[in-house]
Amino acid sequence: MKKFMNNVDDLLAESLDGFADAHSDIVTLGDDRKFVRRAALSPGKVALISGGGTGHEPLHAGLIGHGMLDAACPGQVFTSPTPDQMLAAAEAVDDGTGILFIVKNYEGDVMNFEMAAEMSDREIMTVITNDDVAVETSTFSTGRRGVAGTLVVEKIVGAAAEAGRSLADLKVLGDRVNAATRSMGVALTSCTVPAAGTPTFTLADDEMEMGVGIHGEPGRRRVPLEPVDAIAEEMVPAITAELPGVDVLLFVNGFGGTPLMELYLMYHAARASLEERGFRIHRSLVGNFVTSLEMAGCSITATSLDDEMTGLWDAPVHTPALRWGM
Amino acid sequence: MKKFMNNVDDLLAESLDGFADAHSDIVTLGDDRKFVRRAALSPGKVALISGGGTGHEPLHAGLIGHGMLDAACPGQVFTSPTPDQMLAAAEAVDDGTGILFIVKNYEGDVMNFEMAAEMSDREIMTVITNDDVAVETSTFSTGRRGVAGTLVVEKIVGAAAEAGRSLADLKVLGDRVNAATRSMGVALTSCTVPAAGTPTFTLADDEMEMGVGIHGEPGRRRVPLEPVDAIAEEMVPAITAELPGVDVLLFVNGFGGTPLMELYLMYHAARASLEERGFRIHRSLVGNFVTSLEMAGCSITATSLDDEMTGLWDAPVHTPALRWGM
Repeated sequence: MKKFMNNVDDLLAESLDGFADAHSDIVTLGDDRKFVRRAALSPGKVALISGGGTGHEPLHAGLIGHGMLDAACPGQVFTSPTPDQMLAAAEAVDDGTGILFIVKNYEGDVMNFEMAAEMSDREIMTVITNDDVAVETSTFSTGRRGVAGTLVVEKIVGAAAEAGRSLADLKVLGDRVNAATRSMGVALTSCTVPAAGTPTFTLADDEMEMGVGIHGEPGRRRVPLEPVDAIAEEMVPAITAELPGVDVLLFVNGFGGTPLMELYLMYHAARASLEERGFRIHRSLVGNFVTSLEMAGCSITATSLDDEMTGLWDAPVHTPALRWGM
Repeated sequence: MKKFMNNVDDLLAESLDGFADAHSDIVTLGDDRKFVRRAALSPGKVALISGGGTGHEPLHAGLIGHGMLDAACPGQVFTSPTPDQMLAAAEAVDDGTGILFIVKNYEGDVMNFEMAAEMSDREIMTVITNDDVAVETSTFSTGRRGVAGTLVVEKIVGAAAEAGRSLADLKVLGDRVNAATRSMGVALTSCTVPAAGTPTFTLADDEMEMGVGIHGEPGRRRVPLEPVDAIAEEMVPAITAELPGVDVLLFVNGFGGTPLMELYLMYHAARASLEERGFRIHRSLVGNFVTSLEMAGCSITATSLDDEMTGLWDAPVHTPALRWGM
């Protein structure tokens, strides 16, 4: 295992300290590093809190800031945060207007966020994302997994929260965006969890894992590596099967180890495949946003946008990882 | 070799087409894909043109837009663009106000940009970046190599160009920023050039290449992998040896295959090392900006900022890869 670190036990703490120092204009660390939150809060606004295992950076802490999240709770690598983290974050960022949890559909995450909501006196609602159409149930999830589409939910709901919408409204909107969003991933290599020290899985030199999860969970099948056009041709029908509309946000997300050049190649192939099927590419996002440590591979996400969702996607955002309009 | 592509010959064209489609609000492709340029030009402004081999994305095309470059000329992977590309870009973006070439110090790049400047009737000046202190001469360069610090030059000079400064002023400023900037890199793995199909170099499981170049060129020495604090402790003295001031921009740049989590760890270590030496971290940037395909590793760049340079660094920028203030 070759990684930049001092030792496995200090990995998360030192990385969080670096993150908070590098972005001190936007974020600040909570006590005991239980959460990262906006340095400046907006009173009278519903607070958006997300979180999950570390290893998917910049998700979620890199999406804290104006127009997106108010706080994020980082667990150890690929491990759910604990309920006391969400409770501490809730105390820090909610002024009584209410809290929306945005949670990727993994059993540990769902259980711990749910426990925090039950333990808290505050008004809390939860949106669970499950955009990954690759498999129906998986290693860590009952039902579909929440993957890169979570960023789309956080962006659109974040803009609506900034505009002063009510907690109940945001819950409905978040569920609607999630329902309009589908993703699927493909891996060319495994990642290595630092505490494990060896690759999570192995692929032969000519194999890829079609439908891989963002923790290296198995996908649909292990198949020979194909040209990128053929890969896109397999993934696009899967993610568009039940999309509610033809104007889409196309989001090609790198898993961490794939060069940007190849992500734009995949974008090119996915776009062509979508357009052949009558979809119109209304908005685009390409980059490493929901990663699996250093895994080589990517996911394709499509969200059917209506006018309201497009306006909220375009709204100003100022986070470490996503910025526009301000 | 596992890469997302159709075939090696179409790699660059398809990736550029994807890039231009994904960012059509900011950039447009020139004829025959000779260059990428801003979709909307600013009349009366000196045009900034850069370029170089592909494989370092988002540098340079991802840094086109308000406040940075006007055009970039992409060569094949790790191969210089040809003079006709720079000539075509110059015709497309210069309205007669003048052109500044920003060129990383590699023999092919310097020669081809120089040839273009000689062949053109336009007023052209050139800033050559050579921020890499690892080695004095290298595989592709006479004198120090130009690496991640090139982004700092492009950002600061780009803001000054946007503010209407003259070509002669920008040339002086660019040379001054370059002289105030030092970088050094370290690799944990090699990259694989698609046309070669095999890794550029090999490192044992417990080795790193200290001082590696952004094409996988040899650095100072091959040494056993060390804790990140020890790596930072070796690199920071090298880059700060002759820095002109103690208020610095600290830029930790990923080479493509290293997770963001580890880059923030390196930032944390480098920051501590700089502060121990009396430097103050005035501004920060962390991410994959000047990459070497999928190489695992990173570079540390420090630029001594004065008030003028700080103001220009903070000025609004709107490119595919770097955005703030607008």
